[in-house]
Amino acid sequence: MNDWLKPLQDGLIEGRVLTKNADLYSYSFDASFGEYLPEAVVQVKNKQEVVHVIRLANQYKVPVYPRGAGTCLSGGPLPVHGGIVLDLSKLPAKIDVSPGDLTVTVSPSVRTQDINIEAEKRGLMYAPDPSSAHVATIGGNLAENSGGPRGLKYGVTKDHVLGLEIVTPEGELIRTGGQTIKNVTGYDLTKLIVGSEGTLAVIVEATLKLMPKPPAVKTMMVSFHKVRTAGEAISRTLTSGVLPSKMEFMDQACVRAVEQFQPIGLPVDAAAIILIELDGPEEALRIEQEKVEAIMEEMGAKEVIIPESDEEAAKLWHARKQVSPAIAKIKPTKVSEDATVPRSKIPDFMDRLQTIKEKYDLEVVAFGHAGDGNLHPNILCDQRDPEEMKRAEKAVEEMFEAAIELGGTLSGEHGIGTMKAPFMEMELGDAGVDMMRRIKRAWDPHNILNPGKIFAEKGQKLVLRNE
Amino acid sequence: MNDWLKPLQDGLIEGRVLTKNADLYSYSFDASFGEYLPEAVVQVKNKQEVVHVIRLANQYKVPVYPRGAGTCLSGGPLPVHGGIVLDLSKLPAKIDVSPGDLTVTVSPSVRTQDINIEAEKRGLMYAPDPSSAHVATIGGNLAENSGGPRGLKYGVTKDHVLGLEIVTPEGELIRTGGQTIKNVTGYDLTKLIVGSEGTLAVIVEATLKLMPKPPAVKTMMVSFHKVRTAGEAISRTLTSGVLPSKMEFMDQACVRAVEQFQPIGLPVDAAAIILIELDGPEEALRIEQEKVEAIMEEMGAKEVIIPESDEEAAKLWHARKQVSPAIAKIKPTKVSEDATVPRSKIPDFMDRLQTIKEKYDLEVVAFGHAGDGNLHPNILCDQRDPEEMKRAEKAVEEMFEAAIELGGTLSGEHGIGTMKAPFMEMELGDAGVDMMRRIKRAWDPHNILNPGKIFAEKGQKLVLRNE
Repeated sequence: MNDWLKPLQDGLIEGRVLTKNADLYSYSFDASFGEYLPEAVVQVKNKQEVVHVIRLANQYKVPVYPRGAGTCLSGGPLPVHGGIVLDLSKLPAKIDVSPGDLTVTVSPSVRTQDINIEAEKRGLMYAPDPSSAHVATIGGNLAENSGGPRGLKYGVTKDHVLGLEIVTPEGELIRTGGQTIKNVTGYDLTKLIVGSEGTLAVIVEATLKLMPKPPAVKTMMVSFHKVRTAGEAISRTLTSGVLPSKMEFMDQACVRAVEQFQPIGLPVDAAAIILIELDGPEEALRIEQEKVEAIMEEMGAKEVIIPESDEEAAKLWHARKQVSPAIAKIKPTKVSEDATVPRSKIPDFMDRLQTIKEKYDLEVVAFGHAGDGNLHPNILCDQRDPEEMKRAEKAVEEMFEAAIELGGTLSGEHGIGTMKAPFMEMELGDAGVDMMRRIKRAWDPHNILNPGKIFAEKGQKLVLRNE
Repeated sequence: MNDWLKPLQDGLIEGRVLTKNADLYSYSFDASFGEYLPEAVVQVKNKQEVVHVIRLANQYKVPVYPRGAGTCLSGGPLPVHGGIVLDLSKLPAKIDVSPGDLTVTVSPSVRTQDINIEAEKRGLMYAPDPSSAHVATIGGNLAENSGGPRGLKYGVTKDHVLGLEIVTPEGELIRTGGQTIKNVTGYDLTKLIVGSEGTLAVIVEATLKLMPKPPAVKTMMVSFHKVRTAGEAISRTLTSGVLPSKMEFMDQACVRAVEQFQPIGLPVDAAAIILIELDGPEEALRIEQEKVEAIMEEMGAKEVIIPESDEEAAKLWHARKQVSPAIAKIKPTKVSEDATVPRSKIPDFMDRLQTIKEKYDLEVVAFGHAGDGNLHPNILCDQRDPEEMKRAEKAVEEMFEAAIELGGTLSGEHGIGTMKAPFMEMELGDAGVDMMRRIKRAWDPHNILNPGKIFAEKGQKLVLRNE
């Protein structure tokens, strides 16, 4: 038995430690690749227990892997070096809306969707809407700086965080930022921690920005004969003075997969479709909609469809949410990427994806938040076919290269985690990564908080196989 | 002569070194308190010269003080330990708009207003609008994370920065972030550096977000019988579903000072006025304006004035810009604060200011971006009266305490610099400040970049006197 197990248990009052194999197994994976058994799982029930776990981990030099709902697409919560999984999903749920301040204070354990439900009761909105909002915890969203379709108009998770309460890697409970909209008091630790993938702090509370809920929304679906035209139409719209709240792209393979999975009458003969949502005052929407329609016609769109009711619009957005499960039916293994390019480079990136797909003879489908340059190319393959998986690994590497050559980045919203760590230097250079490592070392001298993420270990390579 | 002076000069090709007393003097102050003579000023003309200066400074352990236009209100560019002032305002001007990406890439030396002028030529807008935009450089705005009236709706400088090119404190030229809207590749060094007041990096280029210019704007001026009612009316508006682009507060003393300085017919008998700007599509503005009018009447506003032409509206906004110079005429010394509170606490903070003013028998006027809780209480005093200045120092300290007690922060947009450094622990605690210091030490082991700012030195206190 590990010598830290007893003191770990002894310091908990409400929380508990799990060590049975069946329990450890259910904490060994997330929504990305790889399985790693931890030595223990701690389900903490209050902030002081988080402090206890972290201090003890420093004393015994045991790695700690913070975890929310485990929906991460880049390996954030994977206990790659064993040690302790710190399960934060059992902390008491807190969603404390302050309508006069347009803020909400939450515990990391609440589901992101529930925050929005509470906000809407007061006519407000929590803008970030990652596709996993109905399962993922806000804690995970904060750690990964999650995006979502509405990111186009409203930004990502980080843009909506005013302050945090955190436990530092050495076990100090501190606050960063605060409850005010403007704050320039010292370094912006809040925005440093959000998106640091659990490597710099354990978030135990957060104050988030709310905003007035837009009075009306309008949905449009536009289909295209050519993928490239869809990309150009997106660019044209965004430079026309209209800023839609969402602009989602689906290529033909995605459309067909969704129709096979849950038929709702999407145009399966189109090369691509774009789903658009406009939001704002009713009067303005009518005009914006006409403007977008005119652009689409000018661009030679195949068809513009405007749903006649809210229910019909909801069906379209539901179809968009079904893309991920639907394409997962095509082949057993789904490699989901999120390399992101500057907006004007979307058509070029689509061309590059086509070339990569042909070169490696792989099933590649693409969908995503094309309006902000954040496409999700997915490779559909079979993990049991090592030869195919090797081609997939090469294809992923070329996607990263293409994105960076086009002025883009490795990850728009999924995070680096384990999978993209080997490519960090390719984008940032040695000196750039070194400045990040310095922060990690200064904050976490014993490297106990989520080690093995973001920074590649010696000789680490992309491996898309569970070995 | 300093032994580093010759090698400093030798490494420059286009730039030059100034050492004459008259030159050094003109770099010894900014728009805050204190005068400090540097040993040399370097006017660099390209990025490589910045690298040269920083590397040499590390070699000789000389402090380097980066400087833009010197409009800082918190002492950011002051060479408090002598050494070298690094004048970045002579770098070649670059404003490179990429309309398809909705971005602009700029050199630090350009005036913020000029970026907006270039953006507007393409129907776009650079949202941050600090009051000094017509003089300040974007480099200074980035270093200080400047705010401005439009921050209410659009956020501050940091919210509009996608990527930076920087020289690290040890002289490495690296890029952070990029050109994409979404980016979660590693730690967010961009948002860490913006607002770090020149202590973590010298910014030599930046890529900023642009947005479609709102098609229309509408101005309203509302006057009140009571200051507290004005505060409450702001809160009520912000929870009504309307989000104005600006909501600026001026108390009676400010209104009167402006009228004395440049009469335009402001209501000098009102206890306070609020200037409101709504922006968006014309059709929506009409409805929003009616909504705001109804709220103001319900709150018992004295009068709601809607300017009849754009020229009249422009006059009102010009009057708002005149507050600072106008109140400076009241007494020779102006102590400008920017402690910020959560929105709902604005009326309470106004009450606290009144109490402090009476307790210390000082002339205190208040104006500012009340819509986001960012008031600027100004103490008007006379530096030649040491007894009054001591009362002012105490009053400032109590303003900070009041803001923090109300859940606020020391600084909403001016920065910590030299003046607020002694109060950092009051807001953040020792452990919070320690986490910031660790980053500084890890990045700048020889403490050469802007030392004496943000972090208080032993025994440092607020002193509002040039000694």
